Amino acid sequence: MRQEHLKLQSLSHVLISHMHGDHYLGLVGLLSSMNLLGRTKEITLIGPEHLEDLVTSHCRYSGSKFQYPIHFQVTDHTKSALIYESSHLLVKSFPLMHRVPTTGFHFQEKTRPRKLIKKKLEFFNVPIKQRVPLTMGEDFITEEGEIIPNERLTTDPPKPTSYAYCSDTGYFPSVVEHVKGCDLLYHEATFMDMDAARAKKTQHSTARQAAMIAKEAEVDQLLLGHYSARYRELDELLAQAKEVFPQSRLAEEGLVIDIDKDC
Amino acid sequence: MRQEHLKLQSLSHVLISHMHGDHYLGLVGLLSSMNLLGRTKEITLIGPEHLEDLVTSHCRYSGSKFQYPIHFQVTDHTKSALIYESSHLLVKSFPLMHRVPTTGFHFQEKTRPRKLIKKKLEFFNVPIKQRVPLTMGEDFITEEGEIIPNERLTTDPPKPTSYAYCSDTGYFPSVVEHVKGCDLLYHEATFMDMDAARAKKTQHSTARQAAMIAKEAEVDQLLLGHYSARYRELDELLAQAKEVFPQSRLAEEGLVIDIDKDC
Repeated sequence: MRQEHLKLQSLSHVLISHMHGDHYLGLVGLLSSMNLLGRTKEITLIGPEHLEDLVTSHCRYSGSKFQYPIHFQVTDHTKSALIYESSHLLVKSFPLMHRVPTTGFHFQEKTRPRKLIKKKLEFFNVPIKQRVPLTMGEDFITEEGEIIPNERLTTDPPKPTSYAYCSDTGYFPSVVEHVKGCDLLYHEATFMDMDAARAKKTQHSTARQAAMIAKEAEVDQLLLGHYSARYRELDELLAQAKEVFPQSRLAEEGLVIDIDKDC
Repeated sequence: MRQEHLKLQSLSHVLISHMHGDHYLGLVGLLSSMNLLGRTKEITLIGPEHLEDLVTSHCRYSGSKFQYPIHFQVTDHTKSALIYESSHLLVKSFPLMHRVPTTGFHFQEKTRPRKLIKKKLEFFNVPIKQRVPLTMGEDFITEEGEIIPNERLTTDPPKPTSYAYCSDTGYFPSVVEHVKGCDLLYHEATFMDMDAARAKKTQHSTARQAAMIAKEAEVDQLLLGHYSARYRELDELLAQAKEVFPQSRLAEEGLVIDIDKDC
């Protein structure tokens, strides 16, 4: 977060997929750092039930208390559930298949405001206060009582974007329904074909299996990650995914994807 | 450890002073990494009683088991105690004064072998197998039964070295007896004089207080560390220590001190 100059204090929620060390061990350090930096704003931690125990144990050991409220929200790894909603975003968790209770997360932008056609607003002399209702699809009524249909004053908004995160999981076709049609799917791809047996045993996926999920779900782009440290080069891993789903790419440290533009 | 090319697998003991996040949060990650890298050799974790809970909670959450034995050894923060002994090293813990149970650690090399005088060995025709007893101070008896006193065949060994680690602690004069005369004393120096009240409240030390301990204990060299992030420059902090104890220096990431040569 520091390297990318992300503002620690603007963080409002942390989502934890499952309680394996490489997916949660940094959390208490992050919470402690925010505390030392003077955070007072509440934070919500969403994840498996043990998350609360993890944080409260630390407080008990260290005899310390965070100076900001921490709200815990337990995920259900057995079915899909809405875990967050704001004016512009819906977030759902859904089941993955791993050695401990694990969920994926799906981020769905709500319908965006309709785009105002500036020239038409001037032509019909639309007052400023009428503009927000127009972006929400309402018609405009002139002072003379004439109804100007919304379609004459606005254009369709950009398609709402969506992103799904699936890590860690074995090959689990039921994921498809939860990530259907999303703009960007992150799916773990721990192994290559040659280690498919190991993938099955450890409940991880091969790059090819990640691509099968992406293809079946008809997503726009697939982002691969969580590679096993045994591979020095990832060209072949990417190639195996691309054989099934050409719009695949490798996640790397610091990569930024603009879902609107790049997917 | 990676940056310094230290061998993870040669690590046999980890000593934890106290259960504050900046002093233990990396431990489970370290243990997990060693597990993934195939460690089978036992490791001993020495520290406060909650250390075991920390590690076993992680195993419970993650449904995993380390592939190597972990031996826990609880420190006593109320009195000095021998916590480790090998053929060449003694390690003791001793009480520090902090907001949670905290101990310092003192590493004392045992007496080193006496140095053989090569020319004298040749002169008296000392057999190879008699050389180790000579380094341990025994006299040499010739085939004719003549006793050659050890002092004629050897010189005194280099002085055994010692190192003490004190973090975190408020100004705590009873530390002096535990670190008396050591070659290198690491002592926390979180604050400068201007923040002495804050040091007292949070049970940390100023650089000057660290130097007072070093002076009283007549150590060879003082190494300062654990600086508050509020200070951009540490020149003044070091200067305040040097006023009391000139052989003070600042610890920095990656610094290596050869206690034999540099202290």
